[in-house]
Amino acid sequence: METLQGRLDRCSINTATLGHREPLGVTIDRIARAGFGGIAPWRHEVEAGDARQLAKQIQAHGLTVTGYCRSTYLPAATRREFEANIASNKAALNDAAELNARCFVMVVGGMPEGSRDLDAARAQVSEGVAELLETARRVGVPLALEPLHPMYAANRSVLNTIAQALEMCERIDPQGASGALGVAIDIYHCWWDPHLLQSIGAAGKARRILAYHVSDWLRETSDMLLDRGMMGDGVVDLRALRGCVEAAGFKEHVEVEIFSARNWWRRDPDEVLLTCARRLQDVC
Amino acid sequence: METLQGRLDRCSINTATLGHREPLGVTIDRIARAGFGGIAPWRHEVEAGDARQLAKQIQAHGLTVTGYCRSTYLPAATRREFEANIASNKAALNDAAELNARCFVMVVGGMPEGSRDLDAARAQVSEGVAELLETARRVGVPLALEPLHPMYAANRSVLNTIAQALEMCERIDPQGASGALGVAIDIYHCWWDPHLLQSIGAAGKARRILAYHVSDWLRETSDMLLDRGMMGDGVVDLRALRGCVEAAGFKEHVEVEIFSARNWWRRDPDEVLLTCARRLQDVC
Repeated sequence: METLQGRLDRCSINTATLGHREPLGVTIDRIARAGFGGIAPWRHEVEAGDARQLAKQIQAHGLTVTGYCRSTYLPAATRREFEANIASNKAALNDAAELNARCFVMVVGGMPEGSRDLDAARAQVSEGVAELLETARRVGVPLALEPLHPMYAANRSVLNTIAQALEMCERIDPQGASGALGVAIDIYHCWWDPHLLQSIGAAGKARRILAYHVSDWLRETSDMLLDRGMMGDGVVDLRALRGCVEAAGFKEHVEVEIFSARNWWRRDPDEVLLTCARRLQDVC
Repeated sequence: METLQGRLDRCSINTATLGHREPLGVTIDRIARAGFGGIAPWRHEVEAGDARQLAKQIQAHGLTVTGYCRSTYLPAATRREFEANIASNKAALNDAAELNARCFVMVVGGMPEGSRDLDAARAQVSEGVAELLETARRVGVPLALEPLHPMYAANRSVLNTIAQALEMCERIDPQGASGALGVAIDIYHCWWDPHLLQSIGAAGKARRILAYHVSDWLRETSDMLLDRGMMGDGVVDLRALRGCVEAAGFKEHVEVEIFSARNWWRRDPDEVLLTCARRLQDVC
């Protein structure tokens, strides 16, 4: 496995890591100045500005857009709402193309309010992804299904393991024929999975790995959403897992995505970026 | 599937549901008075009193002890500590036998402090369970491996799915030869699992289901440990899942186990028991 020492060009920053405290234009400059090779912006940041202009700024810095975050949740209580969710995602795919994003990150959504039917929500996700696939193919931005930690199954994502995401990919897009459907592997969500190594291997073999996200799981996590750890501060063997992902064939950017309301989001953005740079090189 | 209407004799209360605010002797009387047929006490309650005396009180009420909670965590940073954990569990198994418990609930423990080696912790669990099996067989109380939700993988349990627990059972005790090793299925921990139905089926086929615990997953969970929902207040289709568990061959007690610091633990114990009784009959 290649070291990341001196290879920040292979590293990317998801803008959530800085807490979305500044306009995207400022964040882009910071990330480029810190020496990173990639960025993963969020829709609300892009939609607050001018997508074309931001794309130009990113391109001028030579930054790769390693992912565009993220899909509108798919499951809905009514057909009308479901169709609106699809339409919203189609519009976002156009921006993803404008940004030349390597993938559109699909956080698929949880169960509709009041529902007790997990299977139905999963079926809606499958239907919605299938409906978006043609648009993704046409605009040239693949859909990256991101399995989220099972603790988000009710309210954020009914897709909870890599194996489950791969099964869905294969059902919708057998043998990857479209070239536009795969998975985003975020280690925060799947580090615990007893079948993680097999699933990463299978994802690589199927040529479905579109993104690789890192942070760390803190042993005593105090908040289910906003207490992710900096790489090296938690329990995950990040170097071993990058080894697996690369052995499976994924040699693209390592993207840092840290939600941390009580710690990193309170620090100076340049300090956060410096810490990310050090930890990526030292522990990832 | 048989209804639970009028069948509180088939229902059990895990004493954690009442928040451990009173001595076990008081709790036993309350649970019996409310009409339940089973109880699952905790070690610190039993160890604070006289196990033989408490066993007699439970027996006098005709209550079944549906489980004895719970094992000392197995994984340890040192061999000495690991051996102490084994010894502690052996002592607890004697109390479990005194109580005539249907099973000893094994919450296996997380990763030792400072560790990043999840596989090693899992191997230690496997070793520890194997070491306890002979004692369990001898005293006549089977070990019930309880997979915990993946959000507890770091600090409470490296066993996180039913499938993983069944694999461990089969490795340690092929084909259930000992008659003393199985699983406790707690719906709070595994409701999200994409392979839940298959796993329940497999557990039943292997005759490994030793206990079935219910509560509910609240859509907006505010605390990772102490915010479980009352049956019917969350997203889980409890009736359908009891159907699966019973179709798999488990017809024993349905045990309620709710950790709820902000809600149920603040209410009058008899009110909590009354609500449990109603919800068991209406939604489980």
